[in-house]
Amino acid sequence: MIVVMRIGASEADIADVIEAIEKEGGKAYVDRGVERVVIGVRTDRHDLSPDAFRMLHGVEDVIRVSKPYKMASREFHPSDTVFTVRGVTFGGKQVVIIAGPCSVESEEQIMAAARAAKAAGAHVLRGGAFKPRSSPYSFQGLGEKGLLLLAEAGRETGLPVITEVMHPRHIDLVAAYADILQVGARNMQNFDLLKELALLHKPIMLKRGMAASLEELLLSAEYILAGGYGEIILCERGIRTFETATRNTLDISAVPVIKSLSHLPVAIDPSHAAGTAQYVPSLSLAAIAAGADALMVEMHPDPATAKSDGLQSLTPQAFADMVVQCRRVAEAIGRSIL
Amino acid sequence: MIVVMRIGASEADIADVIEAIEKEGGKAYVDRGVERVVIGVRTDRHDLSPDAFRMLHGVEDVIRVSKPYKMASREFHPSDTVFTVRGVTFGGKQVVIIAGPCSVESEEQIMAAARAAKAAGAHVLRGGAFKPRSSPYSFQGLGEKGLLLLAEAGRETGLPVITEVMHPRHIDLVAAYADILQVGARNMQNFDLLKELALLHKPIMLKRGMAASLEELLLSAEYILAGGYGEIILCERGIRTFETATRNTLDISAVPVIKSLSHLPVAIDPSHAAGTAQYVPSLSLAAIAAGADALMVEMHPDPATAKSDGLQSLTPQAFADMVVQCRRVAEAIGRSIL
Amino acid sequence: MIVVMRIGASEADIADVIEAIEKEGGKAYVDRGVERVVIGVRTDRHDLSPDAFRMLHGVEDVIRVSKPYKMASREFHPSDTVFTVRGVTFGGKQVVIIAGPCSVESEEQIMAAARAAKAAGAHVLRGGAFKPRSSPYSFQGLGEKGLLLLAEAGRETGLPVITEVMHPRHIDLVAAYADILQVGARNMQNFDLLKELALLHKPIMLKRGMAASLEELLLSAEYILAGGYGEIILCERGIRTFETATRNTLDISAVPVIKSLSHLPVAIDPSHAAGTAQYVPSLSLAAIAAGADALMVEMHPDPATAKSDGLQSLTPQAFADMVVQCRRVAEAIGRSIL
Amino acid sequence: MIVVMRIGASEADIADVIEAIEKEGGKAYVDRGVERVVIGVRTDRHDLSPDAFRMLHGVEDVIRVSKPYKMASREFHPSDTVFTVRGVTFGGKQVVIIAGPCSVESEEQIMAAARAAKAAGAHVLRGGAFKPRSSPYSFQGLGEKGLLLLAEAGRETGLPVITEVMHPRHIDLVAAYADILQVGARNMQNFDLLKELALLHKPIMLKRGMAASLEELLLSAEYILAGGYGEIILCERGIRTFETATRNTLDISAVPVIKSLSHLPVAIDPSHAAGTAQYVPSLSLAAIAAGADALMVEMHPDPATAKSDGLQSLTPQAFADMVVQCRRVAEAIGRSIL
Repeated sequence: MIVVMRIGASEADIADVIEAIEKEGGKAYVDRGVERVVIGVRTDRHDLSPDAFRMLHGVEDVIRVSKPYKMASREFHPSDTVFTVRGVTFGGKQVVIIAGPCSVESEEQIMAAARAAKAAGAHVLRGGAFKPRSSPYSFQGLGEKGLLLLAEAGRETGLPVITEVMHPRHIDLVAAYADILQVGARNMQNFDLLKELALLHKPIMLKRGMAASLEELLLSAEYILAGGYGEIILCERGIRTFETATRNTLDISAVPVIKSLSHLPVAIDPSHAAGTAQYVPSLSLAAIAAGADALMVEMHPDPATAKSDGLQSLTPQAFADMVVQCRRVAEAIGRSIL
Repeated sequence: MIVVMRIGASEADIADVIEAIEKEGGKAYVDRGVERVVIGVRTDRHDLSPDAFRMLHGVEDVIRVSKPYKMASREFHPSDTVFTVRGVTFGGKQVVIIAGPCSVESEEQIMAAARAAKAAGAHVLRGGAFKPRSSPYSFQGLGEKGLLLLAEAGRETGLPVITEVMHPRHIDLVAAYADILQVGARNMQNFDLLKELALLHKPIMLKRGMAASLEELLLSAEYILAGGYGEIILCERGIRTFETATRNTLDISAVPVIKSLSHLPVAIDPSHAAGTAQYVPSLSLAAIAAGADALMVEMHPDPATAKSDGLQSLTPQAFADMVVQCRRVAEAIGRSIL
Repeated sequence: MIVVMRIGASEADIADVIEAIEKEGGKAYVDRGVERVVIGVRTDRHDLSPDAFRMLHGVEDVIRVSKPYKMASREFHPSDTVFTVRGVTFGGKQVVIIAGPCSVESEEQIMAAARAAKAAGAHVLRGGAFKPRSSPYSFQGLGEKGLLLLAEAGRETGLPVITEVMHPRHIDLVAAYADILQVGARNMQNFDLLKELALLHKPIMLKRGMAASLEELLLSAEYILAGGYGEIILCERGIRTFETATRNTLDISAVPVIKSLSHLPVAIDPSHAAGTAQYVPSLSLAAIAAGADALMVEMHPDPATAKSDGLQSLTPQAFADMVVQCRRVAEAIGRSIL
Repeated sequence: MIVVMRIGASEADIADVIEAIEKEGGKAYVDRGVERVVIGVRTDRHDLSPDAFRMLHGVEDVIRVSKPYKMASREFHPSDTVFTVRGVTFGGKQVVIIAGPCSVESEEQIMAAARAAKAAGAHVLRGGAFKPRSSPYSFQGLGEKGLLLLAEAGRETGLPVITEVMHPRHIDLVAAYADILQVGARNMQNFDLLKELALLHKPIMLKRGMAASLEELLLSAEYILAGGYGEIILCERGIRTFETATRNTLDISAVPVIKSLSHLPVAIDPSHAAGTAQYVPSLSLAAIAAGADALMVEMHPDPATAKSDGLQSLTPQAFADMVVQCRRVAEAIGRSIL
């Protein structure tokens, strides 16, 4: 940490800062520049906040030199995290394709989706049973019945399944059916949920909040890592900006940035970012070209009748066509979609 | 709802849209313009989503005419919601001042804060026991012990108390100690929490999420209202923008906009928006001048030693000075701070 | 400037950084911490960019300690800038009210606006002659004829006038008629325009760009100050965010932040921020309470017939009512509107 | 246009709206719904603004059905715009690679850059002579000398050249040297510059402003198209958001969105979006996979000595390696980089 003093800060101010640093167990190194004094803080305390020093008299700013997360960082863990869920490997050479409807609506619907996903070459089946909806008047999901149908569809097609858990109370229930538990964008900073999930020891997909910085996403992953569990996929799904032509703005740079800062695998969800199915293939190809380890796409046997997110869901045919193109782009950059 | 057809949409496309509207129980009114056809939809179904029609062939856009929330709207409930919590009235002529530390840290600290709040003229005491923190390494609050100390401080000073509930499991616990339950910005769309809070029948302060639109804030309030409870205060606390000079950007326009769209009382939290105590008095005066019904301010007996948010906490003296000014501004616009 | 080395940077990396610093005329101070090395840079070169060092091998980050602007900063110029334009003082105890239509449309219109502004207590008349419009099909202003009519209306009512200059070619023309030249939000970073305006030596209102940080606003002011001229008013007019309930989001915090960082007077334009007249009075009162030195409001004799911005223009009556309230709030905080 | 009346609007309100519509030459079609009245407006006037009706008593909202731009739209001009500049075709099967330094700094530097660009397979040489810089203390470009050196480097390597024009006064000068004139992000809404450029009849690259919506970008293109000239490339270069891990957020969705709304070719500038060279290859591959027609990349013979943007400039070797990968991705999606 570096404490930058104001121009004209007094010797007493400087002495107070040094005292405060030493009180917290750190060592202070004073650098008297032409314009102002700068004080370096050496400490091995990871939990020391810059704020305490920022309030001292004569202090202009306090700059953090270390990253606020540790176990999620590539500095701490240089090699890529690679793990396998029922035969599907995340973080390796293979790009993983996750597909399925926004919500599980019926046995017929999820079975049709699962078969279409499998036939087109997807590796994991998605489907929501507990749905976070902005409006209380929207379809809220089938709950446990949805989990059951999803698990059956996964079993029948041999695809592992992923679904969202919204409520700490439902963790055990969801874990009984799902192979990967998804934390939705709205819950990325539901810290109680993260802490309890860390104890479960099952793979987790953590979606970036609409207004969360990448640093905050890594801090949320740190909650799980610090809780003792590390099989986490980070998922970019669009951030909120002023642009309204798409539902959210896909932050494609999240792929190389996370790859540089962290060892965890990165997924892209182009469907929630775009909000419209017609833009999804273009964004999916971009995601793979940018280096994403996984793609999570909404696909519905009949989007026009979907109870949620139909507008952004691909038809089975459009999805199958897209996977063919995705495979070509993956191969062009030295990866594969088997 | 209005369905706007593409230029050159066919008669078959138009017939399909009409059929879809009628299938959902609506009536279609076709308007054939110079450039394109526009189809009006008449329905009394509040849950009908525009998305189903947006996917039909030949459709350019579907425009919602009604607001997606109902019970939170001023159209539905024209007069202001006014309610009283242990003698403090929200939504009336009086501007309510809520003050206290970010976190309850000790008996001494919260008692000192409560006495300073009371002495300066505050009406409600705040203090966190369960703290949502971006980093797992930050102070997470005292939990139940914090609730107990807060309640005691409130009892001793005669101030009602407000504190955050983060986890559905803690609702009963928090409700046993608090007069008003606060839903934090990160939980504004934790819909399970909202649904369970609606059943509690205790006053709720709902804070706007950092990336939530005002429409989404009203939809979250609708979750509680639809659950059968209406004593809700909406609180603007800064939204996330590109500007980094302040921690968040206080959306002061939220005051007149919410007052126009809804009947619920509006509070402003300038502390989390500013992120720095020096800007808080200016923003507090602005909030009152803009018409806010309540002000929620972080104040700490000794900000430099605070375990959280010290940087944005006012000292008791600065808080007292500010209340004097707030009172003058309140009177200038025909309100009061008793 | 502070160069933060990566964990594990080599001695050769450190030596290269020191050499690079010395090559630019600076001195390097090496601080070997527990985790990593940090190198302080002492230099009096104001134009030295962190980027050159950021690219060196083994460098994690380079942190700027000084602000990038100088003459606009309060550190450089501690006392408030106060100046008088035809009897109207900016930056003093008096809050200046600027009012008038978006565009000058006709002699009748601008005279009616000027008389209404004067009668209600405004100090400066605004009116656009050259209009920047998003669409080429929108009204683009009356040009020189508009300037002439505006100047006449100012003369007849005794009000100084302000109008926008968009094009360097028009500077002399606009300066022949206007008392204050306005640089619009879209031109805040039209650096050629700023450089040429600096040579004019006439008061300038510089509006913040919709996506400009406050630091960038101060850097744009620095272009004029560095060019040798200092009578500048900085104007916040709303920034672009995800919220669509208002046209832009008024960043009310800009008032205390600029007051803290700079000595230049600050104005608020609530009309462009709100986009709707009904929210303007509330935002105007907030602006004054927050400490703004001036208020610039759109007012039109007949908003329903305005050729631009009618929706956000107050009627003369609404404006007069608002000034009465503004005066009370100004007095409540120890200022005045005479 | 559709006028949505408030719930409970009176018959007199409705009659006033109808009268206002007819006064503007339109026809009104009244649809009396269950909750409220909606009035369709039929008109062939492209310049009619919704604002005039929005102000009428009893009106809740006015919704525009047509797009505000016309000549830039795909509805008006369904086939792709394809044009050739000195042998390089934009908008066709070939993906165009534009490369070169941020600024022309010396003959040696621009010649080295041009040869490296040519050798790696780039088609167009970029280099700035007039530089818009946030700070008045930063390098502002070599001016005409820079243009001369750029043109010479283009001649010697056979590459057409592109450079920015900032000031209407410099249009003829820049046009004497450059094959394509670039309008920078800060000037996207410098409408005077756009109008004068339309008269020049030379290819233009129009960069999206940092806070401009795609609709506004198309409206700015409309200024040039309406002025009678159509060889325009639209360039996405990152928008301003809350995320600070990259300089700006590359809006990769701009590619499919513009392709859907407009017929003009789309370029991506990953360098200004990323702000750091290490992320540029990943974003470039994403841009091509998403369907961009051109890529504009900053490349410098020696980034560490660059006078501007060195941090985000690729070395010649990194650029050459990237073009090899770009070619593979282009071929994977059925395009080519010759």
